[in-house]
Amino acid sequence: MGPPGRIAIASLTDKRSRTDIRAAAIRSGDRRALARAITLIESSRSDHRDQADALLAELLPYAGGAVRIGISGAPGAGKSTLIEALGLYLVGRGHRVAVLAVDPSSSRSGGSILGDKTRMELLARDSAAFIRPSPAAGTLGGVARRTREAMLVCEAAGYDVVLVETVGVGQSETAVADMVDVVLLLLLPAGGDELQGIKRGIVELADIVVVNKADGALKAAANHAAAEYRHALAMLRGRFRDWRVPVLQCSAVEAQGIGEIWNKVEEYRAVTERSGAFHRRRADQARAWMWNEIEEELTDAFRSHPQVMEILHRLERAVSEGTTTPTAAARRLLRAFMGDRRA
Amino acid sequence: MGPPGRIAIASLTDKRSRTDIRAAAIRSGDRRALARAITLIESSRSDHRDQADALLAELLPYAGGAVRIGISGAPGAGKSTLIEALGLYLVGRGHRVAVLAVDPSSSRSGGSILGDKTRMELLARDSAAFIRPSPAAGTLGGVARRTREAMLVCEAAGYDVVLVETVGVGQSETAVADMVDVVLLLLLPAGGDELQGIKRGIVELADIVVVNKADGALKAAANHAAAEYRHALAMLRGRFRDWRVPVLQCSAVEAQGIGEIWNKVEEYRAVTERSGAFHRRRADQARAWMWNEIEEELTDAFRSHPQVMEILHRLERAVSEGTTTPTAAARRLLRAFMGDRRA
Repeated sequence: MGPPGRIAIASLTDKRSRTDIRAAAIRSGDRRALARAITLIESSRSDHRDQADALLAELLPYAGGAVRIGISGAPGAGKSTLIEALGLYLVGRGHRVAVLAVDPSSSRSGGSILGDKTRMELLARDSAAFIRPSPAAGTLGGVARRTREAMLVCEAAGYDVVLVETVGVGQSETAVADMVDVVLLLLLPAGGDELQGIKRGIVELADIVVVNKADGALKAAANHAAAEYRHALAMLRGRFRDWRVPVLQCSAVEAQGIGEIWNKVEEYRAVTERSGAFHRRRADQARAWMWNEIEEELTDAFRSHPQVMEILHRLERAVSEGTTTPTAAARRLLRAFMGDRRA
Repeated sequence: MGPPGRIAIASLTDKRSRTDIRAAAIRSGDRRALARAITLIESSRSDHRDQADALLAELLPYAGGAVRIGISGAPGAGKSTLIEALGLYLVGRGHRVAVLAVDPSSSRSGGSILGDKTRMELLARDSAAFIRPSPAAGTLGGVARRTREAMLVCEAAGYDVVLVETVGVGQSETAVADMVDVVLLLLLPAGGDELQGIKRGIVELADIVVVNKADGALKAAANHAAAEYRHALAMLRGRFRDWRVPVLQCSAVEAQGIGEIWNKVEEYRAVTERSGAFHRRRADQARAWMWNEIEEELTDAFRSHPQVMEILHRLERAVSEGTTTPTAAARRLLRAFMGDRRA
């Protein structure tokens, strides 16, 4: 179904050279080339997808050099303020910082959580920082994939710290935890029940907990909250035998306690690199990522299969109502999908 | 590829009537018929699988009537002792109790955690109780599926309480939480760090926490532990807005505090039925179960596809080592699998 050989080769070499030029520009630190590459990655056009894959293959050998930090926490916890404070602290120490985001909701809300850069005005103006809004559209899986790939490109461009912000609701925390080396969970000084309750499942993903807004009137409350959370976390065994999740305090607004956060991140990296957990985690993430994409694609193919579409809705309802067993429904649907390949 | 029509129909009606007889025997409370039906469900022979599906379809209208209780907790927490105490308490109050187990490890250990019935001698001897060891072999997915189906058959047989024990390691807790209405997490009075630390992810699944061995020398420790866990759990928001996970104490050995546990289960059921969460959870479980089976089957078909098998191992290693992107590897593998259907 492809074009005749000569043209195919021509367009291939053509694409090849374009890829080389792009890759070189990105590695040289050309910010516009970097931004364009991420736009390419975010495109849903299949020819763009092919170009993106070629570019990523070219850049991959130069990726992986950054510390990947996820910033998680409920809306209003002060994630953007912390990212700006931490980002400025790091560029001040000679680091190059890329800020990405995973916000599948942005397709609905129409704009990304990082779209409004005035929230990180100072950092956005710094030449050693690169801020990229969350890809605007698509499923969480799609958004996460594009953010992951954007992270690789940023690393190839020489950014040695990547901060990934989550919107702080739903499953995006998990998606971020699956792509970073360390997850910072930002919490507010315990107030009403809303603030008290750490959303289950999210605290599980945290490697470092930070109580923000430890300033002014809230300083005492933050102290108390930190002690409370420390106590709560002591009940939970950490992800790694060799790491007990610490609870720090900071004031993102006053840029207090930022150095302590960075020190903890470096300590975490040192401990997990020594134990091998750091590289195991990255290898596991990469394999899991591959299998997620495969399963997503397979499920899409399944859901869009004409014979499946004919009966899926009815069977799904029957299963919910308990009028057929999940197993029987699954077998029925699989026969519809596989029939033509099995026989 | 099937047999000629007449024979097919014959064997079909034949199977039909056999199914009717089996179903009737099970519903009449024939324990041997029940045991045989579960053996049929556990069989991996495809003709048995067809018979099992037919039987389940026949029994499904009579299933769903039991309270499904998962009993989770680390090995040594006293799960079996609690199950016997709770089971005897319930049969004493006129309930009919079925005890099942999810123990994928039993394929390795060679026997099920419930295989040694002497651990529940009194309950095993009670005519109002039915104890079934975990299916001996297979993946967690397979074991869970068979346990789920055994649960339906037990319900059709008139058991109004189903207790599902987990082996208390690995993912079996999640599998059990996905098939029951309420999860009891059994804990030991806090001792060494091993006992202190609630394994992350498991506490997340608990609807009711019970500190066991609140007797003799450990009574004080149990009180202390209960307070500690209560404090820790207060930090975590429950699965449902309208339910705060309570922390109870009991002595399974001395059958103390068993009534309180049952009262909490009934309270939990009342609260979640009022809010609709109870039935939502069952419907979600059924749909999720169906999709799990579909995804498992699809992944199996994928992994066993000849063109995929040719390149999978190499690509998976390349992804782990970071020499290719997960996306590129996934696309490459999907082309190998889908090629023949897409073109």
